[in-house]
Amino acid sequence: MAGDGPKGDIGLIGLAVMGQNLVMNMNDSGYSVVVYNRTVAKVDAFLEKEAKDSRVIPAHSIEELCANLKSPRRVMFLVKAGKPVDDFIEQLVPHLEKGDIIIDGGNSHYPDSIRRTKELEKKGLLFVGTGVSGGEEGARYGPSLMPGGHPDAWPHIKEIFQSISAKSGDEPCCDWVGENGAGHYVKMVHNGIEYGDMQLICEAYSLLRNVLGMSNDECADVFDEWNQGALDSYLIEITANILRYKDTEDGKGGPDTPSLVDKIVDRAQQKGTGKWTVGSSLDMGVPVTLISEAVFARMLSSMKEERVRASQKLDGPSAEFKGDKKAFIEAVRQALYASKIVSYAQGYMLFREAAKEYSWNLNYGGIALMWRGGCIIRSAFLGDIRDAFSEDPELENLLLSPFFKKEVAGCGDGWREAVSVAARHGVPIPAFMTALAFFDGYRSATVPANLLQAQRDYFGAHTYERTDKDKGEYFHTNWTGTGGDITSNAYAA
Amino acid sequence: MAGDGPKGDIGLIGLAVMGQNLVMNMNDSGYSVVVYNRTVAKVDAFLEKEAKDSRVIPAHSIEELCANLKSPRRVMFLVKAGKPVDDFIEQLVPHLEKGDIIIDGGNSHYPDSIRRTKELEKKGLLFVGTGVSGGEEGARYGPSLMPGGHPDAWPHIKEIFQSISAKSGDEPCCDWVGENGAGHYVKMVHNGIEYGDMQLICEAYSLLRNVLGMSNDECADVFDEWNQGALDSYLIEITANILRYKDTEDGKGGPDTPSLVDKIVDRAQQKGTGKWTVGSSLDMGVPVTLISEAVFARMLSSMKEERVRASQKLDGPSAEFKGDKKAFIEAVRQALYASKIVSYAQGYMLFREAAKEYSWNLNYGGIALMWRGGCIIRSAFLGDIRDAFSEDPELENLLLSPFFKKEVAGCGDGWREAVSVAARHGVPIPAFMTALAFFDGYRSATVPANLLQAQRDYFGAHTYERTDKDKGEYFHTNWTGTGGDITSNAYAA
Repeated sequence: MAGDGPKGDIGLIGLAVMGQNLVMNMNDSGYSVVVYNRTVAKVDAFLEKEAKDSRVIPAHSIEELCANLKSPRRVMFLVKAGKPVDDFIEQLVPHLEKGDIIIDGGNSHYPDSIRRTKELEKKGLLFVGTGVSGGEEGARYGPSLMPGGHPDAWPHIKEIFQSISAKSGDEPCCDWVGENGAGHYVKMVHNGIEYGDMQLICEAYSLLRNVLGMSNDECADVFDEWNQGALDSYLIEITANILRYKDTEDGKGGPDTPSLVDKIVDRAQQKGTGKWTVGSSLDMGVPVTLISEAVFARMLSSMKEERVRASQKLDGPSAEFKGDKKAFIEAVRQALYASKIVSYAQGYMLFREAAKEYSWNLNYGGIALMWRGGCIIRSAFLGDIRDAFSEDPELENLLLSPFFKKEVAGCGDGWREAVSVAARHGVPIPAFMTALAFFDGYRSATVPANLLQAQRDYFGAHTYERTDKDKGEYFHTNWTGTGGDITSNAYAA
Repeated sequence: MAGDGPKGDIGLIGLAVMGQNLVMNMNDSGYSVVVYNRTVAKVDAFLEKEAKDSRVIPAHSIEELCANLKSPRRVMFLVKAGKPVDDFIEQLVPHLEKGDIIIDGGNSHYPDSIRRTKELEKKGLLFVGTGVSGGEEGARYGPSLMPGGHPDAWPHIKEIFQSISAKSGDEPCCDWVGENGAGHYVKMVHNGIEYGDMQLICEAYSLLRNVLGMSNDECADVFDEWNQGALDSYLIEITANILRYKDTEDGKGGPDTPSLVDKIVDRAQQKGTGKWTVGSSLDMGVPVTLISEAVFARMLSSMKEERVRASQKLDGPSAEFKGDKKAFIEAVRQALYASKIVSYAQGYMLFREAAKEYSWNLNYGGIALMWRGGCIIRSAFLGDIRDAFSEDPELENLLLSPFFKKEVAGCGDGWREAVSVAARHGVPIPAFMTALAFFDGYRSATVPANLLQAQRDYFGAHTYERTDKDKGEYFHTNWTGTGGDITSNAYAA
């Protein structure tokens, strides 16, 4: 009997590189995957090449895909976020039955996942929006998976998801994140943090190159060394590999062969998740300054032609570095490490507000574990974050955990040195700088916003609170002796 | 005959402080204003007190207001942005005739003004969304007005608007900004820039206080002195006044009387326009970093209790300032001035992209003139911006104008010194820092985004462009020798 029923464990729609690799990963874990692609020729090409001699079952229509799936059906999309997801849902729904599960593995915006969970619930279908991180490599050999959505779906996808995901030690880098849009929210912040991590590495590289005049190979040695310590991470590792890659077919060549990285145009692209993270930080009122600077740095990089013109008109300082080279390399490392801690602290501040806003029960340590392996930002560091939340699940801020407090304190001198030298040498390091400014602001019992509140009251009668009165009690001063006594509540400034 | 018809030149709805003051301003300019307020008692109170013995005509209903207006009717709102504006429009429309004009003078979000212009045009009504800046004082004696909307409305409101607006020399600080949402867009950016200006002043104040240990009175003297030079502006002027104000009823007192500013809680509030500006900069892909830092600084300030707790746990450096005090004050001035130039340059970059996006014909010099007087950010500096665009209407960027290029160059040493000292002393100056990082990035022909593009291609097959190939030609490298040749277009990073 069983032999006659549908054989497919899970369906997968969208055979771009990520989709193909995820299929082969599921296949290797023993699952039968039914695959479909809008351009149907891709299905056959995939079966003839990458999926040859596998359990993969081709489908040439949505109907055929659904007919080949065991119940409850599990159908996963790996298609472009936005309209394509809604389009496929629309095509899929008529072929599904109550209790079937639709999984969106693209980089969807979390409000869409909140909406889709609700809409499909009305039809008796269980929607899951899952973050998938790790790029090509991760998808193929173990991604970080961050599923959220309808909680009833989790028992039906847990086994597949945790089998194919990356592992940190014995633990899968995949766990249930939370209701409706929580999975895509966590993935969004992951991507924002990835923007930050990449920008921080670029700034460190820029300081080594432009202050110390180091070669790409020398820089690669530095990143390799850093990768042995607290900065141990995938992005640092690939940075060293990239910097050593020569401009030849196989990436090899003698010392005179130019580095490939020097031939790459410095115009960074971005899609949307970094901006979304900043947008959410504005909505939630959380100062996620580092990711913001990383997003803005990509925008500035993309103004290549204008920068080239500006470089011919605007002069910078002509400072020459006279300090100790080795000490400065260590200062840059400290700046990178401390800034990274600030960036993750800001990301976790955002989680806290989002959890309040959307009534999600986020498992902060669990999120660090999901990111610990498989994904682009995987690092030893995430183990430390997990430990910090294990020690104190109510931890108010990462910066206040005993471990990170000590780490940042140990980086202070180098961090301040790096910022100071960069300012004097004219090397732009917006992320290192904003991290330092945030840290100094965060640890300030008083900031000059008292003057700002006075200004607002002076020109707009916006009122202020007094240090010697209760919170919530507002005062207005007739600063000039000529303005009125009316206070404003209809005007913003 | 004329004596029997309606006498009102313009109607005004919303008698909060701004509304009242604007009515009295119009009254002084010879216009008969018909006033209405949702809480009708306020109409009578206003007529009995502020508007006593004036031409102001009270209305106790929308109907009465409209019946008292000459044709075409001009009705202006000064009510809270959002739903109240739509509500009043709905109430008003039945009492209006084709060609009548509705003017929204609140801080509405520009997409709402785009929508309202279109919706009302269908009904034959002319909508205007106008920025009004200048706070209480400006509204009463001459605000900066930034009207946009249906162009047919302009000839009917030009005279009133330009009569009541502030003047810069003989020129009114009011001109037509552009179609549909352009007026509110320019007002939004104005407010964003105001956030930036205020934050910059707070950072300068913080450096004088925390690095040099100056008293509020000494700081006031410094701001007074700055107000005589390139920084001459309303906000610098009121800052000096604020810092001198003692904690007494009349703001006076002996040298031992504490300053009022020291009694004000350092928790800055904000409504929405600053965030909107940052949101728009994300949408347009323009790195408006300084306003963003200003918005984030307000958010961080509002986390007062957490900052106080953090201050007890996190240590900073214990640097002592040993340089020349006078030279450092000048360095702070240079940092403030250069950062301010960067902030306005970023604001104008945003205008350029918004003009493209929304097909607005923005008059860049004209905008500077509108801001030159009346509004909160009024300053001598805006005259220089206007001159820069007069000299070269096609100016690519304010930083590239001969005047500002020279000004920024003259500030370089002090700016870099201020950032360096702040980093070493642990004084947070995020806006000064981001401005410097932006400037150094903007004038860099190459930034390290080549490494970032290499990373994206390494982990996600996102491809890159080569310096020795044409723009738009994309390459992918199989960096590890094990990844596939498939490039990605469905995944973002």
